[in-house]
Amino acid sequence: MGDYRKLWESLQMDLEKHDALCAVLPELYGSVYLSQKDRAEAMNYFNFVISEVHGLRIEELNNHRQKGGKVVGTFCVYVPDEILNALGVIGVGLCGGSQFWIEDGEKVLPRNLCPLIKAFVGAKISATCPYFQSCDLLVGETTCDGKKKAYEILAEYAPTYVMELPQMKREKDIKDWEAEIKRFINEIENLTGNKLTYENLKNSIKLINKKRRALKRLYELRKNTPSPISGLDALLVSQIAFYDDIERFTENVEKLCDELEKKISILKANRKKRLMVTGTPMAIPNWKLHHIIENLDAQIVVEETCTGTRYFENEVSEDGETIDDLIRNIAERYMKINCACFTPNEGRVEDIIRLAEEYKVDGVVYYNLSFCQPYSVEYKRVEKALKDKNIPLILIETDYSTEDVGQIKTRIEAFLEMI
Amino acid sequence: MGDYRKLWESLQMDLEKHDALCAVLPELYGSVYLSQKDRAEAMNYFNFVISEVHGLRIEELNNHRQKGGKVVGTFCVYVPDEILNALGVIGVGLCGGSQFWIEDGEKVLPRNLCPLIKAFVGAKISATCPYFQSCDLLVGETTCDGKKKAYEILAEYAPTYVMELPQMKREKDIKDWEAEIKRFINEIENLTGNKLTYENLKNSIKLINKKRRALKRLYELRKNTPSPISGLDALLVSQIAFYDDIERFTENVEKLCDELEKKISILKANRKKRLMVTGTPMAIPNWKLHHIIENLDAQIVVEETCTGTRYFENEVSEDGETIDDLIRNIAERYMKINCACFTPNEGRVEDIIRLAEEYKVDGVVYYNLSFCQPYSVEYKRVEKALKDKNIPLILIETDYSTEDVGQIKTRIEAFLEMI
Repeated sequence: MGDYRKLWESLQMDLEKHDALCAVLPELYGSVYLSQKDRAEAMNYFNFVISEVHGLRIEELNNHRQKGGKVVGTFCVYVPDEILNALGVIGVGLCGGSQFWIEDGEKVLPRNLCPLIKAFVGAKISATCPYFQSCDLLVGETTCDGKKKAYEILAEYAPTYVMELPQMKREKDIKDWEAEIKRFINEIENLTGNKLTYENLKNSIKLINKKRRALKRLYELRKNTPSPISGLDALLVSQIAFYDDIERFTENVEKLCDELEKKISILKANRKKRLMVTGTPMAIPNWKLHHIIENLDAQIVVEETCTGTRYFENEVSEDGETIDDLIRNIAERYMKINCACFTPNEGRVEDIIRLAEEYKVDGVVYYNLSFCQPYSVEYKRVEKALKDKNIPLILIETDYSTEDVGQIKTRIEAFLEMI
Repeated sequence: MGDYRKLWESLQMDLEKHDALCAVLPELYGSVYLSQKDRAEAMNYFNFVISEVHGLRIEELNNHRQKGGKVVGTFCVYVPDEILNALGVIGVGLCGGSQFWIEDGEKVLPRNLCPLIKAFVGAKISATCPYFQSCDLLVGETTCDGKKKAYEILAEYAPTYVMELPQMKREKDIKDWEAEIKRFINEIENLTGNKLTYENLKNSIKLINKKRRALKRLYELRKNTPSPISGLDALLVSQIAFYDDIERFTENVEKLCDELEKKISILKANRKKRLMVTGTPMAIPNWKLHHIIENLDAQIVVEETCTGTRYFENEVSEDGETIDDLIRNIAERYMKINCACFTPNEGRVEDIIRLAEEYKVDGVVYYNLSFCQPYSVEYKRVEKALKDKNIPLILIETDYSTEDVGQIKTRIEAFLEMI
């Protein structure tokens, strides 16, 4: 890492505390990622991005802001990147995946809350995340109770705008979401002084569709038996999608896919069980479950999560004569995402069954971040549907601490033996 | 209690299990309620209602249904009773307050969930609540994650309709709620075959305003030092408001108020601390916190909860020339309720401060049902606001079990000594 202390200082970061955070990551990354065998060469780009996670990318954000550009932080796959990008904004996903931030988060939030929420609030109030410090605006959304209410706390520390996501998926809800996106456009136009046009929006839609297609191509390759890429590596790529430069990222995912395509023909069969992970998102550096599973005789071949298929499935239609048509297309695409915050959410159950077949999985791991109620209540419905289809399922509810690693390992081992 | 076994049988109840439930209530009620000293004579009506909670009232619901009338179960103060009543429906609040139902609720819901939700689901699936068994339709709403997702489970056991409550309180949200109420009217018209008219709606609004005014009158009397009624008794009246016959209930609350008014002049001053309870609702027979507190040197004089002020504050305006005007009035009145499920929810903080002054409280008890995230996250904001006003505050997070009664008692004692 270069010397970014001046940059961090200019962002009003708590440098001492941040040093402690920086000291943890390389070791963790080394033991989880660099220790993997037979990784694709093209993963070196993603290694590099991680090694510069608080450096080069922050410098890029800073340069963008120096030139008058804006940076907006988001927490959810429902906030439409197409709008941000069209208006010249760099959008960065801010969900927190480190235990490091939990303690600070618990200063202002109850302990009985999802670690992801406690972590992102802790990251902001401890001033140890340069992404938060680089944001001109934070954009929340009314998905789950925990996030919805946490944004009220966050708003005390940084300018925060909240989008009202409908709770159902009727036709009237899609229209409501379209109207909400228009209000969001207004907000971002005011922030940037830029104006949304048919051209800049259409270009933005194309750019982001291309990114989603690249990720889809990567996931398609994972359907091969054996998959040419570890679940850990695929997860990393998905996580980086949330904050990396869109074009450069897309290019590097395509390069990775090119290499993996060639690799497929020389891959030897193995006896590893193929698993799906479904449930709550895994924000950087939350690699806990994947690391446990892939150190056993198993490979994760698909994630039905917000850091998986929900992020890239469905493109925004590029058809449309007017800017309103395009906004409608955006509303429709985003309302196809099947998050447990919706009621009912039958689409997710169908997705899981479809993906289980497409990816030929031997079993499904239902991953629930502690205290996430939408996903924990929805478990019973998924359990019933998978039982009907004879697809083995295990529920793992956990947070970011390492205390339960041994226990999870034992449970996954038993699950692998059973399936 | 009369012999209602045939009635219960006709409602497909689990009689054996229900016997076990019926065996618990009288003893509990005796020790919590009947042991109180100097109660108003007029409380005898409410004693009677409780003693017939699974009897006479169920018979009334049954008679109503025999005559072709419908019964609709609700779970939230946002579902407009005015509509149900105008269309000839008897609405009954179904929130569950007994530990008895938790075990059955946990068969289909995660344990890490609000006891009120686990209890009402358990009440339905165990077929031990004659109110659930008497309902032609259950009406849910998208308030908190737990309830929103639990209705999906409930829908497997009974016809369930869910209203989409907005998550914010902007002008557009009030309009959305108005439109949602119109969809609800349509649903209830279809259920009953009755038609909403200006006349029946206006009469219904008047009737329910009268009920709210009676409760308001009762609460006004509690502003007296000392209050002429225990918090326990006032809570009971509020709880009964959710399922008793509207006119009879109103009449009996007025009678109670008449008696209490006379009583005030002869009340002797005492040294009891005056407390407010704010937070999550207390469904019958959840009298745990009130019982603990009022057995100490304290009196609860106001509840800023859904089984308190949120239920009766603000009337529906009776002005309006058309049915649409009246529906708009209903939407506006309901959107004034300040539940933590909204973001932001500054109105609630203002309510607490206002009520603390009006009721001259010595301290506030923030009551949070375990795992209720909207209220637990909102605690920090309330804490800050009350600190600024020098109003003492204690947080009690608990469920329906009796395990922590000793601990809560000790904490409240310490709080009372401190204030």
